[in-house]
Amino acid sequence: MSKIDEMVVKTLRVLSVEQITRASSGHPGIALGAAPIIHVLYSRILKSTANKPKWFNRDRFILGAGHGSALLYSLLHIAGYGLKIDDLKNFRQLHSRTPGHPEMDLTEGVDASSGPLGQGIPEAIGMAIAEEHLASRFNKEDYKLIDHYTYVLCGDGDLQEGLTQEAMSLAGHLALKKVIVLYDSNDIQLDGEVCFANTEDVSKKYSSMNWNYLLVKNGNNMEEIVEAINEAKKSDKPTIIEIKTTIGYGSSMAGTSKVHGKPLGKEEVVLMRKDLGGEEFTVNKDVYDFYDGVRLKGQALYNDWLEVCDNYQEKYPEDFNLYTKMINDDFAIDFNKEIVDFPKDYFKSTRVSGGEILNDINKIHWGMIGGSADLTSSTMAKGADGNFCKENRLGRNINFGVREHAMAAISNGIALHGGLRPFCSGFFVFSDYMKPAIRLSALMKLPVIYIFTHDTVAVGEDGPSHEPVEQLTMLRSIPHLNVIRPADAIETKEAWEIAYNTKNRPTVLVLTRQNVPMVRTKFSDLTSLGAYVISKEKNRIDKIIIATGSEVSLAIEVQKILLAKGFDSRVVSMPSVNLFEAQKDSYKEEVLPSAIKARYAIEMGEASHLYKYLGLEGKLFNISQFGLSGKAGEVIADLGFTPEKIAKRILE
Amino acid sequence: MSKIDEMVVKTLRVLSVEQITRASSGHPGIALGAAPIIHVLYSRILKSTANKPKWFNRDRFILGAGHGSALLYSLLHIAGYGLKIDDLKNFRQLHSRTPGHPEMDLTEGVDASSGPLGQGIPEAIGMAIAEEHLASRFNKEDYKLIDHYTYVLCGDGDLQEGLTQEAMSLAGHLALKKVIVLYDSNDIQLDGEVCFANTEDVSKKYSSMNWNYLLVKNGNNMEEIVEAINEAKKSDKPTIIEIKTTIGYGSSMAGTSKVHGKPLGKEEVVLMRKDLGGEEFTVNKDVYDFYDGVRLKGQALYNDWLEVCDNYQEKYPEDFNLYTKMINDDFAIDFNKEIVDFPKDYFKSTRVSGGEILNDINKIHWGMIGGSADLTSSTMAKGADGNFCKENRLGRNINFGVREHAMAAISNGIALHGGLRPFCSGFFVFSDYMKPAIRLSALMKLPVIYIFTHDTVAVGEDGPSHEPVEQLTMLRSIPHLNVIRPADAIETKEAWEIAYNTKNRPTVLVLTRQNVPMVRTKFSDLTSLGAYVISKEKNRIDKIIIATGSEVSLAIEVQKILLAKGFDSRVVSMPSVNLFEAQKDSYKEEVLPSAIKARYAIEMGEASHLYKYLGLEGKLFNISQFGLSGKAGEVIADLGFTPEKIAKRILE
Repeated sequence: MSKIDEMVVKTLRVLSVEQITRASSGHPGIALGAAPIIHVLYSRILKSTANKPKWFNRDRFILGAGHGSALLYSLLHIAGYGLKIDDLKNFRQLHSRTPGHPEMDLTEGVDASSGPLGQGIPEAIGMAIAEEHLASRFNKEDYKLIDHYTYVLCGDGDLQEGLTQEAMSLAGHLALKKVIVLYDSNDIQLDGEVCFANTEDVSKKYSSMNWNYLLVKNGNNMEEIVEAINEAKKSDKPTIIEIKTTIGYGSSMAGTSKVHGKPLGKEEVVLMRKDLGGEEFTVNKDVYDFYDGVRLKGQALYNDWLEVCDNYQEKYPEDFNLYTKMINDDFAIDFNKEIVDFPKDYFKSTRVSGGEILNDINKIHWGMIGGSADLTSSTMAKGADGNFCKENRLGRNINFGVREHAMAAISNGIALHGGLRPFCSGFFVFSDYMKPAIRLSALMKLPVIYIFTHDTVAVGEDGPSHEPVEQLTMLRSIPHLNVIRPADAIETKEAWEIAYNTKNRPTVLVLTRQNVPMVRTKFSDLTSLGAYVISKEKNRIDKIIIATGSEVSLAIEVQKILLAKGFDSRVVSMPSVNLFEAQKDSYKEEVLPSAIKARYAIEMGEASHLYKYLGLEGKLFNISQFGLSGKAGEVIADLGFTPEKIAKRILE
Repeated sequence: MSKIDEMVVKTLRVLSVEQITRASSGHPGIALGAAPIIHVLYSRILKSTANKPKWFNRDRFILGAGHGSALLYSLLHIAGYGLKIDDLKNFRQLHSRTPGHPEMDLTEGVDASSGPLGQGIPEAIGMAIAEEHLASRFNKEDYKLIDHYTYVLCGDGDLQEGLTQEAMSLAGHLALKKVIVLYDSNDIQLDGEVCFANTEDVSKKYSSMNWNYLLVKNGNNMEEIVEAINEAKKSDKPTIIEIKTTIGYGSSMAGTSKVHGKPLGKEEVVLMRKDLGGEEFTVNKDVYDFYDGVRLKGQALYNDWLEVCDNYQEKYPEDFNLYTKMINDDFAIDFNKEIVDFPKDYFKSTRVSGGEILNDINKIHWGMIGGSADLTSSTMAKGADGNFCKENRLGRNINFGVREHAMAAISNGIALHGGLRPFCSGFFVFSDYMKPAIRLSALMKLPVIYIFTHDTVAVGEDGPSHEPVEQLTMLRSIPHLNVIRPADAIETKEAWEIAYNTKNRPTVLVLTRQNVPMVRTKFSDLTSLGAYVISKEKNRIDKIIIATGSEVSLAIEVQKILLAKGFDSRVVSMPSVNLFEAQKDSYKEEVLPSAIKARYAIEMGEASHLYKYLGLEGKLFNISQFGLSGKAGEVIADLGFTPEKIAKRILE
């Protein structure tokens, strides 16, 4: 490496600690330690250009160790990605483009919001699945539309996380050779030396999981890093490169856990700058010039690719047309006409009707890809075209294995990549295992579709450990997330239409294990209102009964009993609290007239979100204990969810 | 092995499928495949006796693959653990003692409720930590009070789960040589062959993680299993024994995924019984007699141990006294006198006051043990006596590494073992990673103490990925769980007192990152009421303002502004929704008089549980979006949480 490389690395280090010390907040440890890795990556390795940060065929990069944000921002600044010096000065300040951890919607050049440990590697693996699939679908001998690597920089913490282990096990199995993990191995974590908590044989562990393991002994030796990455590209396995670095390199706290998250003192930052020269927050012109060259080199690669696209389009117009549709997620479906219809006497679970709908969607949308955590035969959520595997990259069913958390994070990665539309599936109670990744789907506004089945204590025999109670509440409370629990096959189809057409946030579909009767006759857009009157009062409203999912038919039975006793009630189906909340006040008032204080809600779950609609005089029929093992009907009855029992309690 | 062994194994198989087929529900695959393992374990290996199922020094056994419950129940029946034939006939029926997955409070001889995959191995590892610690503390050259193994039977699914990987990595590091994992390796999972989803080199993987790996090639060869377990006991590492079995052995669906969870037909069960002889649901007297011998052998070991106890007590009375206190969790603390006092002008975060309180508790309660997922310096929750490690088994601080989920599951294991009182700690937002294990703490009624800090968007600079919003709602919705969010150091001390004295359920303490002023002056029992009037109205109530945690001081400021504008309000501090719900109606009415409809609640989180107290006319000041990166004060103000802004919105 040349002198300019040394200067760039110094600049990255100094700019980073200047940001952190100015903000009095941030993580100098990784910024100082991993600067050479980031520089090598952006200058020698990544196929990308600041001119086209969203280039579809660019190499992807995820800063798994998102607390290294200052380093990334320093690089994005000098590489011309649009971050200005003023942005660096505003590091970690309110409404800045340089938040504490990278956020993809705030900062150009950030491929994934990161920070929660363990999520970056699975996301990268999701990206690599998308790349392999799209490459197999579109690439020709003569023209390659899709051909890129996915890199992720991670630390010790990432690798200790279970979901990373799940994802790496799967990636090795799938031989996703275009994932390259750069492991910033500095032997230190927050509570002290790594060896206080972890003494694995790293090489042996990842080799056993079908990964290619490489070691860079000196993370300040940039040639060594370049060589390792070039070596990695020759492997037919995913690669992890362990790069030995020094946390907080060059600072007085180097090599200690103190420097992980504690800003350096001002004097020390001044001292580090002294060696480099220039004023605080300045960059030598040579550095900018060097990265101008990098940018132009990337632009040239981009231009070459445009030419490939042109030639491809000419020679393979149909394929190119499909490619365009896929990268734009442009497969409009007329759900009324193109998706399975359900007869009035249809009496199956919503997992079954949901599965039928998905099968139809799979036929139309070539980019639908997904699977379940070893529960496909139960959740009925299966991808088309066989299993995605080493031998069949065109398979759109992913056998995730019993790896729920990685499944969700990998789905995020597929969505981040673009070109494919991911779904994933499991038992509703085990959405718990996926919560951190579902939260990130929402935070990153990714259109992942989550299909959860076996949605209440009606799971029955499997008992409390398998019966969801509080999961609806958990998911309803996540911001930017559609949660829809349909009542019958028609609401399920409407829910699927919403999920399918929602491109700016994830959607969770909550489906039954048990058969449910039809409560609707005609497909429309009622579910999109979140709540609507499904069974009107006869004359004037005495009471309102709100119900969701499988409890809607129960509520209608209750309504009949009440009517026979002389009470006129209205039943409101509320498949989605968040969609109802998004309606106008006038519509809400229409559905739930405020004059009516006798309000009831029925949901076989913890259901606390429904209190909002009940008032102090209302009553919630919910479940606030764990479930029971027994025949579904008996469990439900034991917990009080029969029309007679509820009607009786209302009349008391 | 003798003929009787063959007969026992056949009996276990037939009894199990009889249960499953009668219930038309259950998992024959593992019951048929793993019967020899269970028989070998209970007859040749386990130091235990049906006469004393809770013997403190017994070997522990966790059926990680809890869906194998029928097999366990068959064994517990013939081994004399109290399950009758009628119980087996009621398999998976409502209110039976033989639920779908093992439940420790329903069935004698079940050491842990199991079923959710991945939890069993970490729990076993927690048990082994407890065993090592107690053995180090109490055993003498001449007398060993604590000296037992912990076994867990797991399947492929368990090992694919990330939390298992986290826990095994830690167990290898800690050299917990008394954990023996029996891996029922049958090459099949629900969605097909294991090799569709996983192709690791098992031996190499676990060796790399400092485990001893052994292989039993034929899981029907009981000698081979015994030999492997005896071999395992010689190792100074934890051992995983991969035992090759055939799923659904002996049935027409053997070796296929169909037999995993599908009952056999009645004819087939009759056919299997034919070979064994006898009527349906009967057991040959020889089998009972054999297990009578096992029970008596166990009783003899128990008697030996009682003698050891007697001698120990005589020779080491003080140690024995401490031992008795520890296994009974009998360390009464007068929190008023023995735990740190906080002056009126104390102005620190509740994580800091919480840490001070824990340090005092650690000095008194010798069984307090715990740590954090690499965040001890941030959460201030540290165990005493140094790090628990290979060289210091008396250390009561556990360096869990960045392994949140395993941390929680291991804590469950420690609690299950008894003799120690576990706590664990992390950032509140990352309670998400631990949700499945927290749910199990609650389901098993284990007194684990969870200490979560950095409880709101006041985290500040780290931004939305690190700022909890919906986590309080998530945890409040779990049944049987104390969730307490104290307002200041005194409420924190009261919260700790509740956590400490609650032995029949877990408690979550939700603490601040930022400093908070004192809103109380005198330690008492107010927090145990869940909610109470912290700042009275001046004359008569116009409005009620409910607040929790750090928002209580904010609410008091709002109250002052309102008073200056002529509105008389009452401020209610509500540290715990679940504790308030447990109060009498009369007390609730006293605190929140139903006549007052102008109700407000302030909580910097999603806060939907508070709607219950607001009514249709009330107003919730909450956060229903993700947080922001910036200085804490600015983030809070930007989201509207200043006294002026809230007072203004109330007055509108």
